[in-house]
Amino acid sequence: AINGSRLWDSLMEMAKIGATPKGGVCRLALTDLDKQGRDLFVQWCRDAGCTITVDAIGNIFARRPGRNNALPPILMGSHLDSQPTGGKFDGVYGVLAGLEVVRTLNDLNYQTEAPIEVVAWTNEEGSRFAPAMVASGVFAGTFDLEYGLSRKDLDGKTMGEELARIGYAGDAPIRGRELGAYFEAHIEQGPILEAEDKTIGVVTDCQGQRWYEITFTGQEAHAGPTPMSRRRDALLGAARVVEAVNRIGLEHAPYACATVGLMQIHPNSRNVIPGRVFFTVDFRHPDDAVLAEMDAKLRDAVARVAQETGLETEFEQIWYYAPVKFDAGCVEAVRGAVAELGYSNRDMVSGAGHDACYLARVTPTSMIFIPCVDGISHNEIEHAHPEWCEAGCNVLLRAVVAKADA
Amino acid sequence: AINGSRLWDSLMEMAKIGATPKGGVCRLALTDLDKQGRDLFVQWCRDAGCTITVDAIGNIFARRPGRNNALPPILMGSHLDSQPTGGKFDGVYGVLAGLEVVRTLNDLNYQTEAPIEVVAWTNEEGSRFAPAMVASGVFAGTFDLEYGLSRKDLDGKTMGEELARIGYAGDAPIRGRELGAYFEAHIEQGPILEAEDKTIGVVTDCQGQRWYEITFTGQEAHAGPTPMSRRRDALLGAARVVEAVNRIGLEHAPYACATVGLMQIHPNSRNVIPGRVFFTVDFRHPDDAVLAEMDAKLRDAVARVAQETGLETEFEQIWYYAPVKFDAGCVEAVRGAVAELGYSNRDMVSGAGHDACYLARVTPTSMIFIPCVDGISHNEIEHAHPEWCEAGCNVLLRAVVAKADA
Ligand SMILES: NC(=O)NCCC(=O)O
Ligand SMILES: NC(=O)NCCC(=O)O
Repeated sequence: AINGSRLWDSLMEMAKIGATPKGGVCRLALTDLDKQGRDLFVQWCRDAGCTITVDAIGNIFARRPGRNNALPPILMGSHLDSQPTGGKFDGVYGVLAGLEVVRTLNDLNYQTEAPIEVVAWTNEEGSRFAPAMVASGVFAGTFDLEYGLSRKDLDGKTMGEELARIGYAGDAPIRGRELGAYFEAHIEQGPILEAEDKTIGVVTDCQGQRWYEITFTGQEAHAGPTPMSRRRDALLGAARVVEAVNRIGLEHAPYACATVGLMQIHPNSRNVIPGRVFFTVDFRHPDDAVLAEMDAKLRDAVARVAQETGLETEFEQIWYYAPVKFDAGCVEAVRGAVAELGYSNRDMVSGAGHDACYLARVTPTSMIFIPCVDGISHNEIEHAHPEWCEAGCNVLLRAVVAKADA
Repeated sequence: AINGSRLWDSLMEMAKIGATPKGGVCRLALTDLDKQGRDLFVQWCRDAGCTITVDAIGNIFARRPGRNNALPPILMGSHLDSQPTGGKFDGVYGVLAGLEVVRTLNDLNYQTEAPIEVVAWTNEEGSRFAPAMVASGVFAGTFDLEYGLSRKDLDGKTMGEELARIGYAGDAPIRGRELGAYFEAHIEQGPILEAEDKTIGVVTDCQGQRWYEITFTGQEAHAGPTPMSRRRDALLGAARVVEAVNRIGLEHAPYACATVGLMQIHPNSRNVIPGRVFFTVDFRHPDDAVLAEMDAKLRDAVARVAQETGLETEFEQIWYYAPVKFDAGCVEAVRGAVAELGYSNRDMVSGAGHDACYLARVTPTSMIFIPCVDGISHNEIEHAHPEWCEAGCNVLLRAVVAKADA
């Protein structure tokens, strides 16, 4: 069994990097704080006897040799970057659970047959640089390296520049390595496990996702002497799309999710009719056909709003992935571990996207969920109890060892 | 008659300070660029033989003595600060038209009976620091000096700090001086004069105005695994209020104006349900009773939306002034000047607020409007033809001299 308090202490230690006043974490991808988090993780892995490699998109791999190092490694991990007002567990938990598996095997002096690796993927959140999971997507061959390195934040800085700046543009080859399997432990980020009083979610699927960027352009003008009839108010258009996005989500209840999370108003002055508004849409559904229906409705709504309001439109779907079915063998490995350990559990579809979704394209993959309090994530109050963290890590240990020794 | 090309050249010279790529001006109140604009104005006034005083809220007065300096001065002016994406004329025109009047009187070696003064009021726009016209409001006794100095920008810097920093926290007494009259020349900032092919607007009234600040607080949560039914989305609430504000404006057509110009979304991340949104509302109407009806409808709408969406609300009306009736004598002085000069004209109600609205509380006041192309203002493409600028300045000269010699 793993050491739950060591895992907890490492989680709390990492949470100091980018700690926010309300008890959360702000460690945006490729900032100085992300570098500090990476450095700490690398140090811990070296202390645990691992060798470190970093690839050109900044993914970090910490390897613990097996008895037969010609065998493809079993990977486990997640990400260290956070949302601007994120929590202490989202991503970090999966990485440090992987490290705890290594530490436990060291304590037990246990050598697996195949090597195992703990991985920290770059920019999973997609908050500073869109889309999410871009570096695991590059690793899996879904995106070109060039595409990944050229992602820009809102200030125009690219992932490539920022990787170089913080010293994490590595030289390990991105592709061409055979892998044995990938396991990712994560908090659920939703309310189901806690509501049903289950300790472990056996994740069988991940819902599909579409991200959009929309810019409405009208005409900036004075809020006082410009009659309502002459206005082309970009914020009025954006507000109508926010309402439409919410309606589309409700029309496909209970599984659809539909969110406008980011909006920038130009020039953003109290007495100026907004001339330009940039905003994003995030759609999710476990059924790809429904996701396509939602897409069609959004396109209709945007076109209708643009016509009503006389706005010019730029509309782009910047990201799409179809619902993912995880590997039956990996799911069975998780289910088996849970059964041995006797934890209450249920099968689940992941509502969030995870690096595991891209890894599933190149290697047998599955995920282990633990509950989070009130189902809240992407929030500074995000919390997971130590027992849950320990339980998920015990499942990870058994599933990984089972695969590595298979 | 004034020198139209000298006036134009000064306008174009001032427009270099804070010039934007699209031909506009960004010279926000009390920034380094505002200081440069003030310094240039002060230099020009000194060159024209004026003495300069600055009061504690940064208003600049440039005085040209009369024959009888015991008489109260006739003031003319406007403001030098701009919107973030403002034009070359809004405000600056009234200040430099005042300077051109002084220069013309110098050329003619004409001494008025009463002294005359050109004034540049601090932070008229209300864009960096809300509300608008705050320094003329302090001058007129509507606001305390303390209130004015403590206005904060979105970064938390106060007007008092910023005045001190740029060296324009002066020591001239703010109140207690008797004034003879105040005239403000300005671009219309709306479409009426140009549409009716009139050169001069004789401004008889200014519509009333109410500004609000609203904060909706819901709960930040993950855009993926958080079911629609569990959300408290602050942006959805704000979007509904944007729609309601627009509807209220339309319900009181054709005179009402209703605008949401500024909105800040927190944490503003694509895959986070917005937990907090701050936004502003700007209401205007020439009839105070209608403005009160609009106010009641807004309060209803915000309460209804908060209930529907489960959001907490902070709601504050941060600014209000009733419609203003300008002084009959000053309006007659403008009308007389226009008649002598033979310019096409019409009476007008100002859609924008102006420093003249507060000055009207302490001295006989009126305004002179000139057209602007397509009625566009608070936009980098704002434009006024040189003939219009010249005509308005000729009217200002005659009205001011008539009052100073009366
Ligand atoms: N797990 C997680 O928060 N991923 C971010 C990508 C997403 O929005 O689903
Ligand atoms: N003239 C002008 O643009 N004033 C700003 C205050 C207002 O919004 O009316």
